[in-house]
Amino acid sequence: MFQLMLELGIIRQSTNGLYHLLPLAQRSLDKLINIINKNMMNIGAQKISMPVLIHSNLWKKTGRLSKNIEDLYIVNDRKSKEFLLSPTHEEVVTDLFSSDPKTYKQLPLMLYQIGTKFRDEIRPKLGIIRSKEFLMKDLYSFDRDQTSAITTYNKVCQAYEKIFKHIGVKFIKVEGTSGMMGGNQSHEFHFPAEVGDDTLLQCKKCEFGMNKEMSPELVQCPKCSSTDIEFTKAIEVGHTFNLGTFYSNALSATYSDTDGTLKPPYMGSYGLGVTRIIGASVECLSTQEIIQWPRSLSPFTVCIIPAKEGSIEENTSLNNIQSLYNHFTKIFGDDIVVDDRTHMTIGKRLIEAKKLGFPFVVVMGKKINENPSLYELYEASTNKLKHYELSNLINYLKQQCLDKI
Amino acid sequence: MFQLMLELGIIRQSTNGLYHLLPLAQRSLDKLINIINKNMMNIGAQKISMPVLIHSNLWKKTGRLSKNIEDLYIVNDRKSKEFLLSPTHEEVVTDLFSSDPKTYKQLPLMLYQIGTKFRDEIRPKLGIIRSKEFLMKDLYSFDRDQTSAITTYNKVCQAYEKIFKHIGVKFIKVEGTSGMMGGNQSHEFHFPAEVGDDTLLQCKKCEFGMNKEMSPELVQCPKCSSTDIEFTKAIEVGHTFNLGTFYSNALSATYSDTDGTLKPPYMGSYGLGVTRIIGASVECLSTQEIIQWPRSLSPFTVCIIPAKEGSIEENTSLNNIQSLYNHFTKIFGDDIVVDDRTHMTIGKRLIEAKKLGFPFVVVMGKKINENPSLYELYEASTNKLKHYELSNLINYLKQQCLDKI
Repeated sequence: MFQLMLELGIIRQSTNGLYHLLPLAQRSLDKLINIINKNMMNIGAQKISMPVLIHSNLWKKTGRLSKNIEDLYIVNDRKSKEFLLSPTHEEVVTDLFSSDPKTYKQLPLMLYQIGTKFRDEIRPKLGIIRSKEFLMKDLYSFDRDQTSAITTYNKVCQAYEKIFKHIGVKFIKVEGTSGMMGGNQSHEFHFPAEVGDDTLLQCKKCEFGMNKEMSPELVQCPKCSSTDIEFTKAIEVGHTFNLGTFYSNALSATYSDTDGTLKPPYMGSYGLGVTRIIGASVECLSTQEIIQWPRSLSPFTVCIIPAKEGSIEENTSLNNIQSLYNHFTKIFGDDIVVDDRTHMTIGKRLIEAKKLGFPFVVVMGKKINENPSLYELYEASTNKLKHYELSNLINYLKQQCLDKI
Repeated sequence: MFQLMLELGIIRQSTNGLYHLLPLAQRSLDKLINIINKNMMNIGAQKISMPVLIHSNLWKKTGRLSKNIEDLYIVNDRKSKEFLLSPTHEEVVTDLFSSDPKTYKQLPLMLYQIGTKFRDEIRPKLGIIRSKEFLMKDLYSFDRDQTSAITTYNKVCQAYEKIFKHIGVKFIKVEGTSGMMGGNQSHEFHFPAEVGDDTLLQCKKCEFGMNKEMSPELVQCPKCSSTDIEFTKAIEVGHTFNLGTFYSNALSATYSDTDGTLKPPYMGSYGLGVTRIIGASVECLSTQEIIQWPRSLSPFTVCIIPAKEGSIEENTSLNNIQSLYNHFTKIFGDDIVVDDRTHMTIGKRLIEAKKLGFPFVVVMGKKINENPSLYELYEASTNKLKHYELSNLINYLKQQCLDKI
């Protein structure tokens, strides 16, 4: 479906694996960022920004530089100092943590950012689902001990579940691989999709789930031994790691405990693929012909199509558009787009609005000249057109929006 | 004053010339981004995101690669293709424009983004005022002809003036140098500050202003010939360029005009140093001892300091904090911070709150135990402490906030 995103001018390729987000994708992205920020505020996580350029010494200290060299972009500055374009920030945030003495009173501490990450993919694919430069939301937690770290870990995982529920795309949470991150506990969040690179194993009996790559040969549930197992292709959209003290030890990060002794904080790392969530949502919900967004991430909730210029409805349309717009503003704020390309027929514009997947399309067509004026409402969720008088239309849309809050 | 930002944990150095924005700076930044987005929506500019990684071929076509090589970060991907970490996006946006056929009906077009830019400064200084990686808001406009381009240019300049007025730091707009950008019209926006790298020349008679670097030997106003000239040191925070067709010609970008002929669009480029505006605002308004923010960019508008634990006011403080917080939420939304480090004395926390420059600090001190309870209100703008009953305090703060909207 990402081909459709390209065709419709939602995203565009800059060069292989690098994409522009055009205005519709950008609006969707800004909505997602708002959802994330609210949920992070609710659990007391604090937002920061860390630089993209990472001095490679930090990665040498943890030994990660040698391991992952092929996906990394490396850049030298004018003094030949070596930097990475950050694919993830564990080292940097640990260094930040230790740049100032900390005490147990400041823990648990949760810091997050929403920023650009880089990965020199050998095979970028599916547009913004796997691109070389992407927006990630990464959170890092610091706790006094393992018990407290697990509490924090569960708190963040719950917030992530809330975020995905709010987005409204079906998701699956499974046990994940710690991979290059280290640590001893990990979960992945996936959107089920045929084009996904991952295969999830889900036990139908005990509901245990894991990524198949953890144990490729598996034929029964490792938890309850049932062989009633389902495999699902999926796109990974979030990943959480309970890291223990690997990074704090490697980078000598400490806090002073009640008795004054210096101890390494227990850390967690939690990522959401922000641009990927946009791409994967569209991938999961759309067909080859028509984009569909989760309502929460649709670039606009309502599209208004005024009559064609020169048509017999043009005057009524011109007379009513401003008041219609004002009524809608009270319900939808700035979440309205007017397709004012009135040199095009209504039919053509309606086809495009349908393709673009706006949840509601309001058309000022032939029946606008009746007394009273009737507006056509197209709803993406039902794929139906209905006629409404203005007051009924407004009440109906109000109701529809209340349902979704 | 950026030293104070470091000391107080508002920003922190990651490595030479690269800075973390900690939670207070991040909040200030998010407020500034909101102000920018609103003003861009008002003039119909559309928000997008373009990649940071720029294929160097684009810069070869315009000849800019050779000119500015020393400030540029260059990175090669796994296939040895050469990329720049973008310091600015004229080439990229022109390439984006021409990636899809355009007609005169789509012009004027204004596209902007808020994203990370890179410049390998030989002498980074003053924290986030001149750092190697920074957040910029860059807008690009496309018009049919020179006349229309000037109209758009003026529209964007006016929007920038509105943004600076809204921010509330005194600014100076002068004629600027086009420098490496090319083009024939340019303006700069500056915050006057002793530490600034630029010197502005302002005629006291005709109010003409320009950057001294345009004509370093000048002793009289080039417009009215007056010698009553004032020189002011300043920090550049915005720059606008009327570019003509330099980039559209170099990159063969065209639109089809009314008669179907293909013509190069007239372009404009308009930058705001987003993180720099935060740093420069603080630089302009603060003293060596105390941070002051423009009210519009203060990380929090109100700081609440509850009584110390174990004090005789502790109980009253605990009983009242929630209702106080609820009242304030109605006025300030989430723009409130509670300094709940109640193991510290009120005095210590008040000193820190003053240093951090919150416009209002509400203290639950000794008089909270009187009947009725009295709250202390410290105002940064007057540097005074006054006592209020709760209802009066709320009314006063409401009034103060209305004044500023």
